[in-house]
Amino acid sequence: MSTVLATKGLEGVVAASSSVCWIDGDAGVLSYRGIDIHELAERSTFEECTYLLWFGTLPTRAQLDAFSQQLAAARHLPPQVIDFLRFVPQTAAPMEVLRTAVSLLSIYDADEKDSSHEANLRKSYRLMSQMAMITAVFDRIRKGKRIVEADLKLGHTANFLWMLNGEKPSDTAIRALDVALILQADHELNASTFASRVIAATLSDMHSAITGAIGALKGPLHGGANEAVMHMLLAIDKAGADPVEYVKKMLDSKQKISGFGHRVYHTEDPRATHLRRMSEDLGRSSGTPKWFDMSRQIEIFIKETKKLNANIDFYSASTYHVLGIDIDLFTPIFALSRISGWAAHVMEQHDNNRLIRPRADYTGPAYPVAYIPVSER
Amino acid sequence: MSTVLATKGLEGVVAASSSVCWIDGDAGVLSYRGIDIHELAERSTFEECTYLLWFGTLPTRAQLDAFSQQLAAARHLPPQVIDFLRFVPQTAAPMEVLRTAVSLLSIYDADEKDSSHEANLRKSYRLMSQMAMITAVFDRIRKGKRIVEADLKLGHTANFLWMLNGEKPSDTAIRALDVALILQADHELNASTFASRVIAATLSDMHSAITGAIGALKGPLHGGANEAVMHMLLAIDKAGADPVEYVKKMLDSKQKISGFGHRVYHTEDPRATHLRRMSEDLGRSSGTPKWFDMSRQIEIFIKETKKLNANIDFYSASTYHVLGIDIDLFTPIFALSRISGWAAHVMEQHDNNRLIRPRADYTGPAYPVAYIPVSER
Repeated sequence: MSTVLATKGLEGVVAASSSVCWIDGDAGVLSYRGIDIHELAERSTFEECTYLLWFGTLPTRAQLDAFSQQLAAARHLPPQVIDFLRFVPQTAAPMEVLRTAVSLLSIYDADEKDSSHEANLRKSYRLMSQMAMITAVFDRIRKGKRIVEADLKLGHTANFLWMLNGEKPSDTAIRALDVALILQADHELNASTFASRVIAATLSDMHSAITGAIGALKGPLHGGANEAVMHMLLAIDKAGADPVEYVKKMLDSKQKISGFGHRVYHTEDPRATHLRRMSEDLGRSSGTPKWFDMSRQIEIFIKETKKLNANIDFYSASTYHVLGIDIDLFTPIFALSRISGWAAHVMEQHDNNRLIRPRADYTGPAYPVAYIPVSER
Repeated sequence: MSTVLATKGLEGVVAASSSVCWIDGDAGVLSYRGIDIHELAERSTFEECTYLLWFGTLPTRAQLDAFSQQLAAARHLPPQVIDFLRFVPQTAAPMEVLRTAVSLLSIYDADEKDSSHEANLRKSYRLMSQMAMITAVFDRIRKGKRIVEADLKLGHTANFLWMLNGEKPSDTAIRALDVALILQADHELNASTFASRVIAATLSDMHSAITGAIGALKGPLHGGANEAVMHMLLAIDKAGADPVEYVKKMLDSKQKISGFGHRVYHTEDPRATHLRRMSEDLGRSSGTPKWFDMSRQIEIFIKETKKLNANIDFYSASTYHVLGIDIDLFTPIFALSRISGWAAHVMEQHDNNRLIRPRADYTGPAYPVAYIPVSER
């Protein structure tokens, strides 16, 4: 049998057909179902984009209303999952808690054994609402605050902020987070989405696929990067250091600067364009422009010296920080957005499935190595 | 940027370098670190094979003793995990429970934030012992039986049977299961192992990678196949049907017969050779040869008419059934074995990492699709 020797990490290798997302890495274009991310970020909403990703076209007003109602109706956590959030240590990482809770949810999901398109869609509504609730409820519990009941009259993003903070969010905060969720909703076969498709392609269920995707997103080379960026900004601020000098020292001691470069984009990440502007606008309007200013200096320096562009993670850090969101919720919020794309990809995989099973280039001892009994070793 | 268009499901595409396992699909050869699976199945033990997979060579007697002691010392479940196994519904699928419990374990694992080789090795010992314990303890609880304490003097396989059944297992049962575990310990970039490497390649942690792998193994096109085989055998037996006639009818009504064919092997799966013999020997010696006899008739028929070979799942079904193991534990037992290979692959991935991030062949609406405001749709 012939094998195709791919570059390490499957760079540039086509692993699946997909109609969800189109990227032109050379031109810096990202689109959902063919619609440019800039148009969506400026004119759409996260709920509308999720409809687009799940159903393939923009909804009519009636379709969008029905969709929003479905999402709101799915704002329910089984009491056993709330019990789990109560008994888990307050020091647990929110991403571990989210991964475990999503795995646990399947045990109480009426559709667990059904991977038809209709059942997958029902699970998608539930997972989108439940993952936001899990993140908010665990954060309330670990801070010793009362759990805030879901408000079914609010939209998805507003309800998340309401359940997280216990106060009605400002329109500015809702729109800022909504745009961030739009920007992170899908990105073709990124590592977590690809993991979800590999899992789904054994015809395993959606909860298994999403649990695996959350595990992949957790890594510092993926969703975990935005947390690393914020830790760096805080360290620079605490040290009262010059951002460029600080980053120079990091590079001199061979430390990686998170938030730069991208496997697919060879120009600016189109999502970074929006997050940069949002970070600046929110920073200036809230009277704390320093996080944006530091970020901008670092961006210019890295661009000049390393020829690397800021990616989506770089400016999401300062954006979320100015919105008052805890650092260890940055990656869970990425997950709350990316469930939109994960679900679309799992449904697409199940609808036209083939097992994803590549080969390895063997580098071990040449076959056959003799088996020597232990008494003779 | 150039892209390589691969066949669907990455068939024949090399996705990583690996020294763990070598397969020649045309010749029907499987080897761990270059040692033929037939030699290992006949002469080695599961613990020794795990050492081989994790360290690259066969252990000396002293190394093997130390390894076994490490595994035995790792026979500890955090009380919170036992609490979880108690409160989860008795009707939950053992694979869902195992996936959730492994995700939960990371919250109590002292090395969770450390993905160095040494920490990964410590987590590997723990996961191998803990996954066996979780499977046994949940099965005891759901049957209303008392939990059996681990016996640190027993080997890994014997201790699992002891904790599962609450009585000292026979040497025949220990050896039969041990050989089955050897045969399933690794299989290069199968779907669950590949999922674990995709997750680990974001530099996410081992528990995330193994949780995802369990989710992938659960699928009926992967580990779940052996459960499907046994359900078919039981249905044939219950109907008092002729096995070949029954399977003919299934084929006529376009039903899939699990346990046949393999992405990689174009000849007999070398693992099936051993499981066929084991199924026959155990069936005859226990006075219940019918499961083997039915299986054999089906195998010959499918081979003649569909030109498909039995794979590892086909004879593991009747083997496990004769060993008295519940059907819904077949796939968890596959996981208890495959953790050996998963851990080896995660360590290998982390030791020389590159993000695994392929591309998709876009089949959606041509970019750019205009954004039409909802009021104009």
